[in-house]
Amino acid sequence: MRLSRFFLPILKENPKEAEIVSHRLMLRAGMLRQEAAGIYAWLPLGHRVLKKIEQIVREEQNRAGAIELLMPTLQLADLWRESGRYDAYGPEMLRIADRHKRELLYGPTNEEMITEIFRAYVKSYKSLPLNLYHIQWKFRDEQRPRFGVMRGREFLMKDAYSFDVDEAAARKSYNRMFVAYLRTFARMGLKAIPMRAETGPIGGDLSHEFIVLAETGESGVYCDRDVLNLPVPGEDVDYDGDLTPIIQQWTSVYAATEDVHDAARYESEVPEANRLNTRGIEVGQIFYFGTKYSDSMKANVAGPDGADAPIHGGSYGVGVSRLVGAIIEACHDENGIKWPEEVAPFRVAILNLKQGDAQTDAACEQLYRELAAKGVDVLYDDTDQRAGAKFATADLIGIPWQVLVGPKGLADGKVELKRRSDGSRETIALAEAVARLAP
Amino acid sequence: MRLSRFFLPILKENPKEAEIVSHRLMLRAGMLRQEAAGIYAWLPLGHRVLKKIEQIVREEQNRAGAIELLMPTLQLADLWRESGRYDAYGPEMLRIADRHKRELLYGPTNEEMITEIFRAYVKSYKSLPLNLYHIQWKFRDEQRPRFGVMRGREFLMKDAYSFDVDEAAARKSYNRMFVAYLRTFARMGLKAIPMRAETGPIGGDLSHEFIVLAETGESGVYCDRDVLNLPVPGEDVDYDGDLTPIIQQWTSVYAATEDVHDAARYESEVPEANRLNTRGIEVGQIFYFGTKYSDSMKANVAGPDGADAPIHGGSYGVGVSRLVGAIIEACHDENGIKWPEEVAPFRVAILNLKQGDAQTDAACEQLYRELAAKGVDVLYDDTDQRAGAKFATADLIGIPWQVLVGPKGLADGKVELKRRSDGSRETIALAEAVARLAP
Repeated sequence: MRLSRFFLPILKENPKEAEIVSHRLMLRAGMLRQEAAGIYAWLPLGHRVLKKIEQIVREEQNRAGAIELLMPTLQLADLWRESGRYDAYGPEMLRIADRHKRELLYGPTNEEMITEIFRAYVKSYKSLPLNLYHIQWKFRDEQRPRFGVMRGREFLMKDAYSFDVDEAAARKSYNRMFVAYLRTFARMGLKAIPMRAETGPIGGDLSHEFIVLAETGESGVYCDRDVLNLPVPGEDVDYDGDLTPIIQQWTSVYAATEDVHDAARYESEVPEANRLNTRGIEVGQIFYFGTKYSDSMKANVAGPDGADAPIHGGSYGVGVSRLVGAIIEACHDENGIKWPEEVAPFRVAILNLKQGDAQTDAACEQLYRELAAKGVDVLYDDTDQRAGAKFATADLIGIPWQVLVGPKGLADGKVELKRRSDGSRETIALAEAVARLAP
Repeated sequence: MRLSRFFLPILKENPKEAEIVSHRLMLRAGMLRQEAAGIYAWLPLGHRVLKKIEQIVREEQNRAGAIELLMPTLQLADLWRESGRYDAYGPEMLRIADRHKRELLYGPTNEEMITEIFRAYVKSYKSLPLNLYHIQWKFRDEQRPRFGVMRGREFLMKDAYSFDVDEAAARKSYNRMFVAYLRTFARMGLKAIPMRAETGPIGGDLSHEFIVLAETGESGVYCDRDVLNLPVPGEDVDYDGDLTPIIQQWTSVYAATEDVHDAARYESEVPEANRLNTRGIEVGQIFYFGTKYSDSMKANVAGPDGADAPIHGGSYGVGVSRLVGAIIEACHDENGIKWPEEVAPFRVAILNLKQGDAQTDAACEQLYRELAAKGVDVLYDDTDQRAGAKFATADLIGIPWQVLVGPKGLADGKVELKRRSDGSRETIALAEAVARLAP
C-alpha cells in the first residue's frame, strides 16, 4: 500500500476524551473514530489489525475442531423469554421494536439462539461432540461506555458453543477450547494467563478467564511468576488426545484476579520471590454450564440407550475488538504502538527519506514491488513529509520493520533496517532487504 | 472437512415457506435458518459461500484502489437529520432508543456516516481521489420480507463511497467501480449486465444496476444478446488509465430493466433476432450523486486555488448476502445447486461408497489428506449413509467436483470423477486424482 493512496488520518494532538493509552494511541494513529458513545468506526489501519486478530482466532478455533457459522445481530425477544434471561438481563440489553411492534434485541451473546439452532436439527448423541462458533458484532448498552474499544457498546466477539452428551465429554470440549485459547493469544504475541473465574450471568460451575498482564489493566491480578514461563502447546497438539496434562500444568500454578483471590493460599503456595501482584485485562472467558440452557430450552438428544436427555453445554468467548486495545496496552512505548508481527497492520514500512530524488524513489519503488510480490504486507511512505515526520508516523502506528531509504546510504548500496520492538538499527545491503523481510 | 464432524443439517422435505428455488435450496442444503422474519442464521455451508463471495468483492475493490474500513451497524439519528433523510426514509428504517433515550438507528446505508468521517479529516484536494468501502450488516425493515436472502431485513452489503474534487474526476471514480463490478460478478461465474437505472432515495443523476439474468428474477429485462458476449476486463486492467472505452462498449449495447425500458428505442436499435426479453436479479448498483451529501453536510475541500468547494460523491453497493441467492437462481437443476467453482463451499467432495471397507477407507483417507495438504477445500463424506444418499447430498449442496471411491474401481486403481456442472463422469487413476483436482 502506498501511503499517498491510503487513508491514515494521524492526529497531532492527544485527544482529550481518551483516558487510557490504547484509546489515545488508536485515535492518534488514525485507527478509530467514535460515531456515538461506545460505537466506533474502524478506520483502515484499525480495520487491518482487527481482521488479523479475527483470522488468528478463526484458525485456532478451526484447528480445535470448532465449526464456523454466522448468527444475525438481531434476535427475537421470545427466544430469551424461553431461557428466562429476557427480564434478567436488565438495561444492558438493547431492546428494539420493529415496524410491526415485534420485540427484537441486539444480541449481547448467543446461548439461546445457538441452542434453538441445535435443538432444531440434532436428535442423537451420534452427532456429538459439536462445537459451533461465530465471529459477530454484539451490543451491550453499558451505562458508561469508556476506554475506547476496551469497554465499547458495539463490539466484535468470537463466541463458541459446545454440545456434549454428558459432563465428562463436555469437559473434554472445555479443555479443547482452553488449549485453543492458549495458542490463540500466544500467536498474537501476548502472555494471556488462564485464571479461575466466577461465572456471572452466563451461569454454570466452571469458568476460566484469560488475562493479559498489563500495568494499565482493569483488574488486580495475583500470580506465581512461573506461570509466565509455561510452554504453550504447538500447532501439532492433538485435540483428539488427552489434554488434561496441559490443563493441569496451567491450572496448578497460582493465578487469580482480585475477585477470587485467596490470600492465604497465595502466601502458602507461592514463594515470596515468585509472587507477582500486577494488573490485567480480560481477553477471553470460557464456561461449562451443564444443562442450564438445554433444560430450559429442551435441547435433548437420544443417548445410546435411546432415552432423551438434555445436552451438556459450554460457551467460549474471545473479545476480538477488545484485543486490539489489550495488545496496545501490553505493547507500546512513549512513541506509539509496537505491534507484535502477527497482528501488525503492515509488517514492513518503507520510508523514502528524500521523496523526489530519482535514485531514492527508484530504490523504494523496486523494494516496494518486490516485497508486495512476495506477499509481504508493506506500507510505502511515498508522501512528501520530511524524514522526521515519517519516522514519527512509522513509530506511532507501530510497524515492526522499517526500512529507511535515503541517498547517503544508497551511494553505498545500503539501507537502514529498524526494528520497532527494541529500536535497534542495522545497516544492510539494499539487495539483501527482500530476503530479510519476506517471511 | 470430514462430513462426520461438520454440521450439515440437510432437509429431506421441501420447506413450505420457501416461494423461490434459491430459498428452498438454501434451506434444504442446510445453509440457512430463519431466526425471525427476514433475519437468518448462516449455517456452516452457507457461511462458507458467503465468505467466498465477500472475499471476491474485497479483492476486486482493493484492485480498483478502494480502501477498506468498517463502520458500525448502529448510527446516530442526528447524523441523518443533517442530510434530511431521517424523516424521509420512512418505516424501512429501524429506529432504536438506547437506555439513555438517545436516538439510534440500524444503518440501511452509510452515505451520512462516511461523509462525516471524510469531512473530519480531509481538507485538501491533494488527498483526493479517495474511495472508502466496508462490508457490513445492514437492516431494512421491509414491510413483507420474503424470498429468503433475496429480500431479507438483516443483510450483508459492500458499500463504497468515492470523494472527488469535481465531476470529471468523480466520473473516473464511477468508471473504476463500473469496471470492478464487471470483474467481480464475472469471477463468481455470473453474467451480470450493467443497465442504466433510476437513482431513487440515494439521489443523483447517474446510476447503473448490475443485473444477473435468471428466469426467476424479480424484474423484467430487455437486452441485445450481444451484451452477453462482451469481454470482461482482465486482472491487468489499468485502473489509473482511461476506462471510458470499456464503459462505452458496455453501455452502447441496449440493456434495460422494465422500469426504464424504451420500447421504441429497443425496436429500432436491436435487430429482432438479437432481442432478449427475460428476467433478472439486481446484485449491485452504482450512483454518482454529485454534491448531494457534501452540500447538506458541508464536506468541503480546498481546491488548487485555495477556495473551499463541496466534494463530488458517488456510492457503490454490492448485495453480498443477496448474491448467494442470486447465484443459486442462476445455477441449479432439479437435483440441487451447481456452484461456480470460485464460490463453492468446497471445491471437491470425496464420496466413500463403502464406508468401513478397509481398502476404500484407506484410499479416501489418503486422497483427503493429500488434497487438504495442497490447500484444496475438500469435503470427505465419511458418514455411514448409503451410496445413493451420498450422491444426492453432494448434488444438492452443489460441490463442483465429486470423487466417487468404491471397491470395484479401486481393484483397478481407479476412481470416478464427476463434474456437477454438466453431470459428466470420467474414470481416472486414483494416483491422478490429486493432480487433476489441485488448482
